[in-house]
Amino acid sequence: MSEVLELTCDLIRRRSVTPEDAGCLPLIGERLQRAGFHVEHLRYGEVDNLWATHGTGGSTLAFLGHTDVVPSGPEASWRSPPFEPTIRDGRLYGRGAADMKGSVAAMVVALEQFVAAHPDHRGRVGLLLTSDEEGPTNLDGVRKVVEHFRSVGERIDWCVVGEPSAKEKLGDLIRVGRRGSLSGTLRVRGVQGHVAYPEKALNPIHAFAPALTELAAERWDEGNSDFPPTSFQVSNLNAGTGATNVIPGELQALINFRYCTASSAEDLRARTEDILQRHGLDFTLDWNLSGEPFLTPPGGALRETVVAVCRELCSLDPEQSTGGGTSDGRFIAPMGAEVVEIGPVNATIHKVDECVALGELEQLPAVYRAVCERLLG
Amino acid sequence: MSEVLELTCDLIRRRSVTPEDAGCLPLIGERLQRAGFHVEHLRYGEVDNLWATHGTGGSTLAFLGHTDVVPSGPEASWRSPPFEPTIRDGRLYGRGAADMKGSVAAMVVALEQFVAAHPDHRGRVGLLLTSDEEGPTNLDGVRKVVEHFRSVGERIDWCVVGEPSAKEKLGDLIRVGRRGSLSGTLRVRGVQGHVAYPEKALNPIHAFAPALTELAAERWDEGNSDFPPTSFQVSNLNAGTGATNVIPGELQALINFRYCTASSAEDLRARTEDILQRHGLDFTLDWNLSGEPFLTPPGGALRETVVAVCRELCSLDPEQSTGGGTSDGRFIAPMGAEVVEIGPVNATIHKVDECVALGELEQLPAVYRAVCERLLG
Ligand SMILES: [Zn+2]
Ligand SMILES: [Zn+2]
Repeated sequence: MSEVLELTCDLIRRRSVTPEDAGCLPLIGERLQRAGFHVEHLRYGEVDNLWATHGTGGSTLAFLGHTDVVPSGPEASWRSPPFEPTIRDGRLYGRGAADMKGSVAAMVVALEQFVAAHPDHRGRVGLLLTSDEEGPTNLDGVRKVVEHFRSVGERIDWCVVGEPSAKEKLGDLIRVGRRGSLSGTLRVRGVQGHVAYPEKALNPIHAFAPALTELAAERWDEGNSDFPPTSFQVSNLNAGTGATNVIPGELQALINFRYCTASSAEDLRARTEDILQRHGLDFTLDWNLSGEPFLTPPGGALRETVVAVCRELCSLDPEQSTGGGTSDGRFIAPMGAEVVEIGPVNATIHKVDECVALGELEQLPAVYRAVCERLLG
Repeated sequence: MSEVLELTCDLIRRRSVTPEDAGCLPLIGERLQRAGFHVEHLRYGEVDNLWATHGTGGSTLAFLGHTDVVPSGPEASWRSPPFEPTIRDGRLYGRGAADMKGSVAAMVVALEQFVAAHPDHRGRVGLLLTSDEEGPTNLDGVRKVVEHFRSVGERIDWCVVGEPSAKEKLGDLIRVGRRGSLSGTLRVRGVQGHVAYPEKALNPIHAFAPALTELAAERWDEGNSDFPPTSFQVSNLNAGTGATNVIPGELQALINFRYCTASSAEDLRARTEDILQRHGLDFTLDWNLSGEPFLTPPGGALRETVVAVCRELCSLDPEQSTGGGTSDGRFIAPMGAEVVEIGPVNATIHKVDECVALGELEQLPAVYRAVCERLLG
């Protein structure tokens, strides 16, 4: 069994359902310490984070990952138990196999190999891991670590995020940025009443409908060369007491923008509120900006290096995308770092029978190591 | 203490929360039997119904009421306990005081007085009571009784419903018809997905919005001389898993028409489905027709009699309305009966501190008795 497969299996066996770490970080910390890394455990609230570095001065290349996983759902729905790594038909099955214990194991192995081959490499390599990426708020994960980094003057120049980015094959797609995510909780107030006396009531569902139609049809921007257009979604909409003869007094909607650099969060907020106001609604809207968009432009050393590695090791010219959800890269980019995400195929993540192809898993350490070699070797 | 007040208090003390009767009907049945009425107890499922008649042949004047009440809500919110009749400031407080134990007591007293004064009156007088009017389905109340009546050839010519109809004073408003009630459970299907990948999902909230806007703005009819226009309300609207990053796969809405004789239920169904189809929605819509509209036109003996009684005994020219919710009158009208509703002020019904003015309560037996006198005396 290869080193990366063995470590991945070891990590999958640990039931690190977010925000539990279940011993993953201490295991990795000890291992990197033995390899000569300087290891810090940064604990915030209930969350463990690990920051391991090797080398001093010059530029810092950091790998970023998480050890927590989403819940498995009913274990009986899985063909093999989610926390028992199982090889079948050339794939390794288990919760976290693709998102992202395979990548984490590959990073560890790549870093060990790199520093063994280049004990006096240029600059610094580091590994930043959290066990609070998959949770609903991520308050005590990379967000807090970056606050700490700012306060102590820690720098990162290049950041490789191991999130599963590939569509069909490792190297066919890398992420060079992410859209921002802006959420809102909207409450539209009406006047409760009996359906037989609509003249005494004001139905917030009816009042909201034209505004909702306009919001859903709005073209917020056209996107730009780096990003697809901003998208708007109402994820939840609830009104009514359950009784069929009562006109509800309030409606609640959860809304979300995935927005690109062609719009600002401030603009989107103002335009949304303007539409609601133009329709004469009595509303409150509480906003939550969970991540601003970031972009690593072409020409940067990391982006060009990762593209070159994909071409050479995977024989693929990777799509350089800014699509998909947010990632912890959004916390690192504002430090002034180039951020690029490259990892295995994401087709099964967060699903039953999550898996990673063994061929990809075995190839990953070489990919990560090649990035180290080219930037710091 | 007057007879009607005493009987009302006795009924309020019985916790006949729908569909419980808590002994109200046996009490009334025994009393009317002593007064010479023929009494039948019609039990369907868990529900007691009572049908008491006096006289034979000729036309039948029936009074209609219910002994069940809606729940009190938290008893501590009441100034005096809801099932302990309490007199305060010229009013009798208690659950059912206005809806409609006061009316029921008044009907009983009126009927006793009428048959004592006119043992050989023309035609028949009757009292039909149910303990399943306030429940969600009313399956085993007057609906079932009328099925039974049809099967045995029972007839009703005139029906006085004792539901609280008055706005500010007994006699200021009577109901001479009711709108129909047509409900629907609408499910709009989309395709569930992640908010970051809207192109892979179809948000049923967004898809439904334009159709909802059109439905809410639609003018279904203009009403007519007897009825206000048909009204449409969405009483409940729910979509979303609770998660803020998931585009829901389905939306559910409960809709309700209160419709007048200017539209048919069939028309309203077809027009609703047409709007949904024109918007290209993938939907199912389960309809439930809980009551067709009915109207007692001007010129009928009962309607003119009740109007005359209001003028004479209450010194009021009553508004002759078809507004408000549905009532059990909807089951009696299709028997070919004239149906008129007259009862006390409805301002506090279904609320905390429900009450009836003592003056009105004392006046009610005379009103009901006067209707008997004029039609059968
Ligand atoms: Zn992940
Ligand atoms: Zn009632």
